[in-house]
Amino acid sequence: MDIRPESLIFDQDGEGTRQHRIKRQVIDGILSGRFKPGDKMPSSRGLARQLGVSRITVTIAYTDLVADDYLVARGRSGYFVSDSAPSAPSLVQACQNGESIVDWTRLMSHREPPPEEIARPFDWHSFPYPFIYGQTDPQLFDHRNWRLCALEALGLREFESLTADHYERDDPKLVEYIQRNILPRRGIAARPNQILITMGAQNALWLCAQLLLTQRRKAVLENPGYPSLRQILGATRCHTQSVDVDADGLAPETLPDALDVLFTTVSHQCPTNATMPLARRKALLSLAAERGFVVVEDEYEFELAFGRTATPSLKSFDTHGTVIYVGSFSKSLFPGLRLGFMVAPHPFIAEARRLRGTVLRHPPGLIQRTTANFLSRGHFDAQINRMRKAYEVRRRAMETAIAETGLQVASQPANGGSSLWMRAPDGVDTDLLARRLRSKGVVIEPGAAFFDPTRPQRNFYRLAYSSIEVARIPQGIRLIAAALADLD
Amino acid sequence: MDIRPESLIFDQDGEGTRQHRIKRQVIDGILSGRFKPGDKMPSSRGLARQLGVSRITVTIAYTDLVADDYLVARGRSGYFVSDSAPSAPSLVQACQNGESIVDWTRLMSHREPPPEEIARPFDWHSFPYPFIYGQTDPQLFDHRNWRLCALEALGLREFESLTADHYERDDPKLVEYIQRNILPRRGIAARPNQILITMGAQNALWLCAQLLLTQRRKAVLENPGYPSLRQILGATRCHTQSVDVDADGLAPETLPDALDVLFTTVSHQCPTNATMPLARRKALLSLAAERGFVVVEDEYEFELAFGRTATPSLKSFDTHGTVIYVGSFSKSLFPGLRLGFMVAPHPFIAEARRLRGTVLRHPPGLIQRTTANFLSRGHFDAQINRMRKAYEVRRRAMETAIAETGLQVASQPANGGSSLWMRAPDGVDTDLLARRLRSKGVVIEPGAAFFDPTRPQRNFYRLAYSSIEVARIPQGIRLIAAALADLD
Repeated sequence: MDIRPESLIFDQDGEGTRQHRIKRQVIDGILSGRFKPGDKMPSSRGLARQLGVSRITVTIAYTDLVADDYLVARGRSGYFVSDSAPSAPSLVQACQNGESIVDWTRLMSHREPPPEEIARPFDWHSFPYPFIYGQTDPQLFDHRNWRLCALEALGLREFESLTADHYERDDPKLVEYIQRNILPRRGIAARPNQILITMGAQNALWLCAQLLLTQRRKAVLENPGYPSLRQILGATRCHTQSVDVDADGLAPETLPDALDVLFTTVSHQCPTNATMPLARRKALLSLAAERGFVVVEDEYEFELAFGRTATPSLKSFDTHGTVIYVGSFSKSLFPGLRLGFMVAPHPFIAEARRLRGTVLRHPPGLIQRTTANFLSRGHFDAQINRMRKAYEVRRRAMETAIAETGLQVASQPANGGSSLWMRAPDGVDTDLLARRLRSKGVVIEPGAAFFDPTRPQRNFYRLAYSSIEVARIPQGIRLIAAALADLD
Repeated sequence: MDIRPESLIFDQDGEGTRQHRIKRQVIDGILSGRFKPGDKMPSSRGLARQLGVSRITVTIAYTDLVADDYLVARGRSGYFVSDSAPSAPSLVQACQNGESIVDWTRLMSHREPPPEEIARPFDWHSFPYPFIYGQTDPQLFDHRNWRLCALEALGLREFESLTADHYERDDPKLVEYIQRNILPRRGIAARPNQILITMGAQNALWLCAQLLLTQRRKAVLENPGYPSLRQILGATRCHTQSVDVDADGLAPETLPDALDVLFTTVSHQCPTNATMPLARRKALLSLAAERGFVVVEDEYEFELAFGRTATPSLKSFDTHGTVIYVGSFSKSLFPGLRLGFMVAPHPFIAEARRLRGTVLRHPPGLIQRTTANFLSRGHFDAQINRMRKAYEVRRRAMETAIAETGLQVASQPANGGSSLWMRAPDGVDTDLLARRLRSKGVVIEPGAAFFDPTRPQRNFYRLAYSSIEVARIPQGIRLIAAALADLD
């Protein structure tokens, strides 16, 4: 059959170059079965006229399609659909509407219902006052060097680290950098077999919960605390107890007598940002040794302390090997990277590696090697430095504006971080506040999701300054104060 | 303190440019605490002499370090370590030897013991005759275009898709391509909310097992079958029963009366490569509807059928919505990518998305967008075409060499694929065979791990031709035949 030039519709505003769009049209025609092996393509002159492009453009597209074996050239007769072109089987498309006789709800009734989540608009970056937490600021991220490091990881010399099935291994270059440069800053000495790379801190916490908790065991978590942790623990059906934190974070003396695993955010309590003092840290470790529980320390943004000396990690005092340390690159690089790590005694890491292998094998090679390059070239340190300085300036602007408007900071964070934990007057529902503020262009995070659902508190909220321009802060804070005054 | 030029050791064979190596030395010195804020750096002249590099090289390195705030320049006095340079806290490094008072073995005793795994040497690519399965052939992979697609995904215009926390969302561009181009070739029509992107097929199968199986439910799997599936099912503690496959794959009439979930590899049975005939597929679906079980169809290498028409997927006949379809890019792109997908009725996909969110949030943005680019530019189709042709040639060489040496193919695969399932004489242990062959430069995969451990069979093995050069095949096969003759 001769394919008519009119069979190829040219999307003038389409994506890619003209050649590319012509190629795409031909490929789609072949794959959809409209063009069949042996069919004759329009002449380059005819198609060029039809599409309003130059003849050479069509010829280049055809030549590319021959190289990829969609077409064959037969001398002066022109171009034909190749006999070995890929094709789609011509099938009845059965499962059109996804109707199903299976009672999926009953079948999955053993699953926990979803807990409350932090309400965030997906289009937060189109808001002028985004006090949103944990996202990447294009002004601070060293995109150029990240790209160069990725390019290197994509090089032919790295073919193996890019493509291979690593089963349960991690990128040795990344592990070495973490071991030699990141952990020492937190006072942690570890051997490579005590380190596991994970798909972000979320994945590390999930692995800990799966390995250490059962229906007969008890986990203690902080209140308020990291909302996803509740979801992670729910999946194990373990007993959970939440313990209220104070201005110094978790108080060891408030822990229940019997527990198996404690999850704690020592350096920057999530969400209050409280830093646990040294005496409490030591008391906590003594208690863990005495009562025989494991401590999972989630250090989700240690790098962002403003001062010169970050407080040492809990793990750095862990003489009894009871602490599992969880770190993340989500805050210091970007959350879409999905990369974190954990440090623990080898028997635990070995089992965690095996479970990770069952669930997903390993984090993608490209992601691991790119990160290793970025770290080892010194870009990571420079970036943290840059973020720390910018955050310090923004934090000062936050504090000034808050003081001027009379908003109330719920707990005064000691050092660094990227957010403030705020308290609205009693009786204010910050979900409602957040919804009202969106119409004014302000994004805040209502705090209900951070609390134990059996003891709800609805008048807290989080204000992050990791994604908002410093110049916008005063007006953003004023809008929040005005909205609160309206609600009162 | 003045830092002496001798404090900087220059690794002549080190990685990166000279400037980079100087920078690295300075950064390491600062981070390790050897160089302290206010310390004076060696003069550029002195350091250049010490390191045997030009003075301009040192000056450029210093200037970069100033930009990154490791150093400050003080006019004619020279360069000093910056007061706000990042630093390591000076801590006692406590957990030196990973000694632990925790009885990790007891603590994790609720975990299943590890099953047998396929023995593969990690350095398989240094063997001249690697009949190894599922790895990437640098000769066939379109590395150049992959790199260009990644570069595009790393562009500033894609900042959001690269860096953002997508929570439970997938890359819409990738989902759209799968929906519009990949699934139709398998006869499957699906809406975007019936598709979930996973960390490879492994992750998809794991999600299915977690969501559909409990201690009170029963899963049926094929024997021999995919070894990792046993590990995945073990984690759910469900009842399992394995059903022997024959030359046409799974026979529906051999299924037990009561079952909840069937895992099957319909198009290319793993590891026998048998293709299930149409009549069996239809009988299987009738049975699923009648007895009320769910079928998980793992199509792990459908793209690699040699003939023009690939057999339609089981899912394409699924009028009752009982089939969950699992696809993977591990074979057609590369396994280190860790990308796959599943297609199922929306209620199941919604719950799978939520579980994936708890475990790891989402596959990294860079990986998803790069793949979407590679697919939508037509490189994927071209690559599959190239692989298919190369595999067909290699397969013919395999069959010729096997016929000449009298080796026995256990089941004659119908169409395509990348491996042959082989049977050694009764009494031969292919683990031993594999070990002996390694010393001859030959890698084969012993078959024991594919069998139900309660009914072990030790005389099977898998020979893949996805990573071996065609010219090496005849001699590789001869070496296997010789080793078998020795063992007999």
